[in-house]
Amino acid sequence: MWEVVEADLLPVSIGAGILGTGGGGNPYLGYLRVREELRSGATVKVIDPEEIEDDDRLVVVGGMGSPVVTYEKIAQGGEETAAARALEEHLGEKFDAIAPFEMGGGNSMVPMIVSARMGIPLVDGDGMGRAFPELQMITYLIYGGSPAPSALADERGNVVVFSEVVDARWLERIARAATIEMGGHAGLATAVMDGAFCKRSIIPNTLRLARSIGRAVLHARKTKNDPSAAVIAVAGGMRYLRGKVTDVHRRPAKGFARGHVVLEGVGEDAGRSIRIEFQNENLVIWEDDEPKVTVPDLISLVITETGEPITTELIRYGFRADVLVLKRPDLLATEEALAVVGPRAFGIDLDYQPVF
Amino acid sequence: MWEVVEADLLPVSIGAGILGTGGGGNPYLGYLRVREELRSGATVKVIDPEEIEDDDRLVVVGGMGSPVVTYEKIAQGGEETAAARALEEHLGEKFDAIAPFEMGGGNSMVPMIVSARMGIPLVDGDGMGRAFPELQMITYLIYGGSPAPSALADERGNVVVFSEVVDARWLERIARAATIEMGGHAGLATAVMDGAFCKRSIIPNTLRLARSIGRAVLHARKTKNDPSAAVIAVAGGMRYLRGKVTDVHRRPAKGFARGHVVLEGVGEDAGRSIRIEFQNENLVIWEDDEPKVTVPDLISLVITETGEPITTELIRYGFRADVLVLKRPDLLATEEALAVVGPRAFGIDLDYQPVF
Repeated sequence: MWEVVEADLLPVSIGAGILGTGGGGNPYLGYLRVREELRSGATVKVIDPEEIEDDDRLVVVGGMGSPVVTYEKIAQGGEETAAARALEEHLGEKFDAIAPFEMGGGNSMVPMIVSARMGIPLVDGDGMGRAFPELQMITYLIYGGSPAPSALADERGNVVVFSEVVDARWLERIARAATIEMGGHAGLATAVMDGAFCKRSIIPNTLRLARSIGRAVLHARKTKNDPSAAVIAVAGGMRYLRGKVTDVHRRPAKGFARGHVVLEGVGEDAGRSIRIEFQNENLVIWEDDEPKVTVPDLISLVITETGEPITTELIRYGFRADVLVLKRPDLLATEEALAVVGPRAFGIDLDYQPVF
Repeated sequence: MWEVVEADLLPVSIGAGILGTGGGGNPYLGYLRVREELRSGATVKVIDPEEIEDDDRLVVVGGMGSPVVTYEKIAQGGEETAAARALEEHLGEKFDAIAPFEMGGGNSMVPMIVSARMGIPLVDGDGMGRAFPELQMITYLIYGGSPAPSALADERGNVVVFSEVVDARWLERIARAATIEMGGHAGLATAVMDGAFCKRSIIPNTLRLARSIGRAVLHARKTKNDPSAAVIAVAGGMRYLRGKVTDVHRRPAKGFARGHVVLEGVGEDAGRSIRIEFQNENLVIWEDDEPKVTVPDLISLVITETGEPITTELIRYGFRADVLVLKRPDLLATEEALAVVGPRAFGIDLDYQPVF
């Protein structure tokens, strides 16, 4: 058990931005919200998955919506808390701890607010180990957790409980439609589970990983070292390319941002050209007309000089960026998981080829 | 208290089609479903509003969706029953009776199935006295009934409970988005209320009115009399025009069919030309560039020869049709109601001018 302090927040926001692989929205806004919460006296206690009791009851929370919208509509944390409380009321039980569903972007921060407001600890870990665009891609749901009941709440006071759903994909479909109608952002609570199942299905200690990555970036900046090298040293993986953004195509599609970005190598990578396909998150690196890296491996872009993560909705022509590839958590690489988070799940006709 | 028998169904379906003012979907499909239900031994008991006890608990049910979709996706009644049961579970109480929300089109029939399956009586009356396109236009909600909790269910097994909503318009928005995602049709249960409130806010005895209208049409057909005259004799109102459809414009807009139809008068109405604006339901009759009849007055088209009601999604060039105008229920003409069901509520810059 440890307590989140203000000095944790900036590193977590940077690390979660990098784990967010281009998606998950802006962690900086979440950082500001949580900082305000801590300054007003809130306490966020974090426990490791192994500290959970087998019969503890947990709820999974996070923000749902288009990351493009999140820039205008800042998640308040109140939505996610309202959603979790709606599930407590629906089920007639109290939860013992909060589990995040996504350790990427703003969703690394929002569960802290829920934890503080409900006065229950936050589990260090999440259901993606990165960011993904859809709900059925959460490990808790992939490995048998229940998509119903789930609850969705907006900042106006609308609360929707999905009391029965056919499966996680149907939850995704209906909750996405409701979220768009709510203005593009809503708080979700889902996958109510006991501690024993949580320990089996969570990707553990990703909050600490995000913090370590962020600290490494900040330290490299201060010491004038290479931020990408510092990230790789902490997280494992490789720098795939150092380059410059020469083209970006982006189109909104049903609440998602789909498109691709082209980078030309610089320095020792001069002469190389790669194309990265994305749907909110980066999905595939193409080079010489061949897929070189595929989802669920993590493909992250950072500003070469600062190590600052770049989201797919903000990337633009001229950025000098390093393309990092980090190893995916093993829970994303089983046959069950790849059916849901592999390239074909995004309509890309490729098999997953692990880089590591 | 009376029991619905098979011989009631065809008249009700015709009468509800006429009260449906062009919307509400196809009552004939609902007729077939209820007939099947009765033939398999179901019992539908109908009570008058004055037979409700003040402390009885009632739930309002009906099908939600685009009437265009309903032609392909026939409401089964199971969706509405699942929605009502979800509310019983959510509230931890049992309902004593079912109140329909719409006496137009298929929604005149669906509540019978819910009544039979739940084994509780159906109240003779509804929340519109006609058909309307949106949920906030239900008298129970106009006069202070609660839009939350409400529940929506589809035929696959998805059940969504709106446990808190800002107001009835937000229920409409979010439930409509969910319904479209569910394939365009879902069963809704809403406006849980006690008997005392139901008696104040229901438009009474519209099921019997629909049956009387339908019987009059069927009798006129058999006796080679004028069906429109028979409808007017039973329901009150007037035949506004006897004509021929010369033009139809229709466009789908967010789950609704908007457009207009042009009729040229025949016989004693020769030389007249009118245009009827609709959004699922007929809203305004224009003649000589002036609004002559406005919602909530009922504007219904029937085939001249047979008295068969014509819905706005099926009307087409060449139909010989009578345009009937029937008096709206008084509960739709108060200031509170006109703010929600008057012409301006449909984006039409007109005041309501009652014909009668």
